[in-house]
Amino acid sequence: MSVNTFGRLLRFTTWGESHGPALGAVVDGCPPGLTISEDAIQPFLDARRPGQSKFTTQRQEPDRVRILSGVFEGRTTGTPISLMIENVDQRSKDYSEVAKAYRPGHADYAYDAKYGFRDYRGGGRSSARETAARVAAGGVARLVIPEVSILAYVSEIGGDAIDRANFDPAEITRNPFFCPDAKAAERWALLVDDVRKAGSSIGAVVECVATGVPVGWGAPLYGKLDADLAAAMMGINAVKGVEIGDGFAAARLTGEQNADPMRPGTSGPDFLANHAGGIAGGIATGQPVVVRAAFKPTSSILTPQPTVTREGEATELFTKGRHDPCVGIRGVPVVEAMMALVLADHKLLHRGQCG
Amino acid sequence: MSVNTFGRLLRFTTWGESHGPALGAVVDGCPPGLTISEDAIQPFLDARRPGQSKFTTQRQEPDRVRILSGVFEGRTTGTPISLMIENVDQRSKDYSEVAKAYRPGHADYAYDAKYGFRDYRGGGRSSARETAARVAAGGVARLVIPEVSILAYVSEIGGDAIDRANFDPAEITRNPFFCPDAKAAERWALLVDDVRKAGSSIGAVVECVATGVPVGWGAPLYGKLDADLAAAMMGINAVKGVEIGDGFAAARLTGEQNADPMRPGTSGPDFLANHAGGIAGGIATGQPVVVRAAFKPTSSILTPQPTVTREGEATELFTKGRHDPCVGIRGVPVVEAMMALVLADHKLLHRGQCG
Amino acid sequence: MSVNTFGRLLRFTTWGESHGPALGAVVDGCPPGLTISEDAIQPFLDARRPGQSKFTTQRQEPDRVRILSGVFEGRTTGTPISLMIENVDQRSKDYSEVAKAYRPGHADYAYDAKYGFRDYRGGGRSSARETAARVAAGGVARLVIPEVSILAYVSEIGGDAIDRANFDPAEITRNPFFCPDAKAAERWALLVDDVRKAGSSIGAVVECVATGVPVGWGAPLYGKLDADLAAAMMGINAVKGVEIGDGFAAARLTGEQNADPMRPGTSGPDFLANHAGGIAGGIATGQPVVVRAAFKPTSSILTPQPTVTREGEATELFTKGRHDPCVGIRGVPVVEAMMALVLADHKLLHRGQCG
Amino acid sequence: MSVNTFGRLLRFTTWGESHGPALGAVVDGCPPGLTISEDAIQPFLDARRPGQSKFTTQRQEPDRVRILSGVFEGRTTGTPISLMIENVDQRSKDYSEVAKAYRPGHADYAYDAKYGFRDYRGGGRSSARETAARVAAGGVARLVIPEVSILAYVSEIGGDAIDRANFDPAEITRNPFFCPDAKAAERWALLVDDVRKAGSSIGAVVECVATGVPVGWGAPLYGKLDADLAAAMMGINAVKGVEIGDGFAAARLTGEQNADPMRPGTSGPDFLANHAGGIAGGIATGQPVVVRAAFKPTSSILTPQPTVTREGEATELFTKGRHDPCVGIRGVPVVEAMMALVLADHKLLHRGQCG
Repeated sequence: MSVNTFGRLLRFTTWGESHGPALGAVVDGCPPGLTISEDAIQPFLDARRPGQSKFTTQRQEPDRVRILSGVFEGRTTGTPISLMIENVDQRSKDYSEVAKAYRPGHADYAYDAKYGFRDYRGGGRSSARETAARVAAGGVARLVIPEVSILAYVSEIGGDAIDRANFDPAEITRNPFFCPDAKAAERWALLVDDVRKAGSSIGAVVECVATGVPVGWGAPLYGKLDADLAAAMMGINAVKGVEIGDGFAAARLTGEQNADPMRPGTSGPDFLANHAGGIAGGIATGQPVVVRAAFKPTSSILTPQPTVTREGEATELFTKGRHDPCVGIRGVPVVEAMMALVLADHKLLHRGQCG
Repeated sequence: MSVNTFGRLLRFTTWGESHGPALGAVVDGCPPGLTISEDAIQPFLDARRPGQSKFTTQRQEPDRVRILSGVFEGRTTGTPISLMIENVDQRSKDYSEVAKAYRPGHADYAYDAKYGFRDYRGGGRSSARETAARVAAGGVARLVIPEVSILAYVSEIGGDAIDRANFDPAEITRNPFFCPDAKAAERWALLVDDVRKAGSSIGAVVECVATGVPVGWGAPLYGKLDADLAAAMMGINAVKGVEIGDGFAAARLTGEQNADPMRPGTSGPDFLANHAGGIAGGIATGQPVVVRAAFKPTSSILTPQPTVTREGEATELFTKGRHDPCVGIRGVPVVEAMMALVLADHKLLHRGQCG
Repeated sequence: MSVNTFGRLLRFTTWGESHGPALGAVVDGCPPGLTISEDAIQPFLDARRPGQSKFTTQRQEPDRVRILSGVFEGRTTGTPISLMIENVDQRSKDYSEVAKAYRPGHADYAYDAKYGFRDYRGGGRSSARETAARVAAGGVARLVIPEVSILAYVSEIGGDAIDRANFDPAEITRNPFFCPDAKAAERWALLVDDVRKAGSSIGAVVECVATGVPVGWGAPLYGKLDADLAAAMMGINAVKGVEIGDGFAAARLTGEQNADPMRPGTSGPDFLANHAGGIAGGIATGQPVVVRAAFKPTSSILTPQPTVTREGEATELFTKGRHDPCVGIRGVPVVEAMMALVLADHKLLHRGQCG
Repeated sequence: MSVNTFGRLLRFTTWGESHGPALGAVVDGCPPGLTISEDAIQPFLDARRPGQSKFTTQRQEPDRVRILSGVFEGRTTGTPISLMIENVDQRSKDYSEVAKAYRPGHADYAYDAKYGFRDYRGGGRSSARETAARVAAGGVARLVIPEVSILAYVSEIGGDAIDRANFDPAEITRNPFFCPDAKAAERWALLVDDVRKAGSSIGAVVECVATGVPVGWGAPLYGKLDADLAAAMMGINAVKGVEIGDGFAAARLTGEQNADPMRPGTSGPDFLANHAGGIAGGIATGQPVVVRAAFKPTSSILTPQPTVTREGEATELFTKGRHDPCVGIRGVPVVEAMMALVLADHKLLHRGQCG
């Protein structure tokens, strides 16, 4: 089975390969009457766009989004919104090596084994380019949840974490790392540049905080808000771990240390801590929703790795040409998009059942 | 919305509260002709059953599973299998305090805010007792995937991890912690006993390894095997983090360190490492599938915590009576069950699309 | 695949066979806070119950419904509602003949071919007894849509239709045929009695009208209200045809004859006709929603029919003992239940998207 | 909610309006390795294309399908197949009248009431043009079920039915009515021409037969093959009734008359009749699957009809310009497409559960 749809009431379906003519998303279930335009969605794609610094892949894609349906006179009609992004920079390249052998750490072998063959050009459907479609869909989702602010940033590269004391949201757009700590950004510039020059790659952690999520969104037990976020984040290319709130750190605490006590507040309780990351029993508590995603280093590196050919012969492969030294960086807009999509879906679900 | 169903082709729906007459699961989509009996499922429930050592809650539940449908002459018929477990030890207790005020760290406030009121007896639907229904459903799922072996264990309690050099699968059932390292089990006995006596609680990490998963199970892009596992694990009560393979550790590695090179093997490639945890591009690679779930310490502790009443007044609450000092321990059979359910579903999905 | 769940936001899953210990339904997604009790649901089951006249099967089933979850202090909690009905009158019978050969017109051969074997006792899962679970679930759905009144009745038996001029809703519960035309009921008594005595069976048409459905419920294009109703009705045992509004008669009309003109009304337009049966473009128009379902004569008849054994030998089968001479009669409460379930689902769906 | 996706394992999502730049479908879950090309799908679109005779609307649309994804080197890859059809003949027209008032019998009022406003150009999303996307998706579905032959035709126009004695499949493509009876086609030519000249419209019945469907496809109880077909057909614009096998006629028969006896055959039983239309208990019996859909006359007629404006004032509307005098005719390729999509989905579902 192939599952290219995500969501329950607000659903999106993506399609397209790295080297096809285009890729896109169909967003279904969007409430009617929302003001929308290509210009409102484009900035999210621009943030994700490659080639904007030496720290991301040099593939040049304008990534212009077109709205093909579901909008009339500048407003959503309640019918499916078809978003299309043309592939432009499908640089002519010799894929014969990748066609014949499996790149280690990539999905080549798994795709071949599952489907019998694969579109080997640029990773085909498993290319990170598909995330452009998610980011476009996320742009629609944001319109559904104007009460929510979503902010993602890189909190750690190669084990070097930001200092929370230096946290400045305004800093995030000032450096090429989406880093809220100016000093960390300086260190990362050196680190990632070394990695890049060595033809290597490095992992990163992206953190995302959504404020303004009303208490009550979410659902027991198999549509928990945190479970849906976990699926959304783990479904992003290169993500290998997801945390809500304190995450794995909570597994090292006692009940007293992990407590989120409450006291009376102006509208509902005030929480004295947020170890839970804004979710209890799968339902939002009204506190900020906090998610972290661990991005592995991309497997596209210059050092040759032993592997096998389609025929089962031993060989070696290494990645020539353009690649992301730290894919986590460009994961930031994708994480934000998935957060928006999950929250928008749960807003509609909550309204449906609880009116 | 309430979402109490999980899975696509092999789906299960659970129902029931902590203090209702019973709880259960309906498993739909099970292939026909599989040999099944209540006795085949009961051992998994026995492993999860509370009250078996001083390290778990003293609630006494026989947790006998009954099969009410979908089985004829000892074999599955292909129609829905209804599993029911009666609640027996609903010890008479005064819930007036919990009815009036919100237990911090529990879902009380969120449920009340979402639904307007809640069944406050023993946590109602958000009680960990619901996991008995998942474990029963998981027992059915195991029948669907005889080619797979699933082994879960506690790998860490309160930050004290097992030593991989001491790993002995046979040890897991010999101690009350599902611990594969005899020495760690000894240390944990002291640690958890202290926690218990102090009326406190402590977090834990559960690791689960599935061997024998054939290359090809899984699905791009929103039904990725790892994304489904992430949702499955994050949906378990008290879980706050999920990792596949190296997980967050991968975010601290370089591409060289994180590589999973291949060489020719007898049936398909042999992998020289498994940082990826057996999944690439959302599809199984044929290597062992490795998942870790972080369990927070239960919020039910003896130390009073500030909180608010339903009317918004300040108050304090602490947990009297039976509770789990380390809920992660009893999470082990639940993690195994969810692993089985996800894999069985993907086996059927793969067969459906790829024949 | 087995698909025993129906609905999107208000979903129900049924389980159980004719001769198992029980059957039931799990209703998920019900809004919280609705007043509910077993006594509120029981009357719908009583209406469907067999053995109440000589015109239905003589199987005696009390069909008492039990609520096992999802209700607290007399109100729905928003969590799954588990409904169970015990099978009582599983009269000891010799099923060896049915086990060996396929009853013509029944699902025996298809089940065997699909699943490799079947629970042959009383039709197993394909027994009309399963509709008891739907009727119970429908009782919950009615609570969700207090603004809607649903009325079903038999409009035709064996080609003998009611006279619309004699239509009296009060008559429906006064005769054993759910017939709104007293004179037709008299004729049917003779007709069906003849059929019964001859060990034969006869088909019927059930019509169902829902008034009070607000304009706007429904959804383009693959969740159209009429398409969902068509699936719901065609999914009832023995149903072979479904019509909305004028149905097949509309295929014989011109555009002028089939027009539903409007004029200004007190709240929205007044319609001058309702050929469309209250649905346009898949969305309710505010007019009464009108559905008709054609029930075939049950295939259980006394006249021997040629058939084959499991081994492929020629044989003959006829139905001994209890059966329904006109299954359409007992279909009336089932049609009402499915109407309620579809409408309740669409109420929640509409509210979710359109607030 | 908006539901623009159909199917379970083989799913398609359509998007687009009558007067947008394009419309399309994304087909997900298609098995890999099937030979496919735009040329293989185009003929189905050509059959549906308007403007081919005076008996269908004179809108001129080339309806060229483009495949944008999911295909590599002429074969399906198992990933989503994006199909796009550009809208060309959006004839400049004054829609101010339709913008202001509700066309009776159309979805104008329902859309406005549901969504608050609507894309009034050419019916927007509720336009029959959307069926082009289904027909394209159906072209993919046919590749999945090479064992099945699907044949649809008009069996009745305005109450004038074909004579089964004259049935000649070769005749279907020889006349502009998809009529298998040459004499009926002659009569219909006169009838529909009269209707067309009068600016009126007329209803029709489309029958569809699928041969080669293996016994076993289908699913109890809420994914019955007949229930899915009913939803598929009722979801087509203008369809108001659906029958399987004898349909409503079965409601007028006795059990003896409606019997489908069996005798030993060369591979499985031979059936002596097919009143059931090839489906028992929701599962295919191996006989031809027979479905009929009743198409109402289009509401677009020249005779003015009373209606109301958006502001609730009385007015009159009539349809100027291009329209279909008998929309059922162009429904034939759509019915075939939906039959193919449902069967292909059930093939995969069956394989998934029953291997």
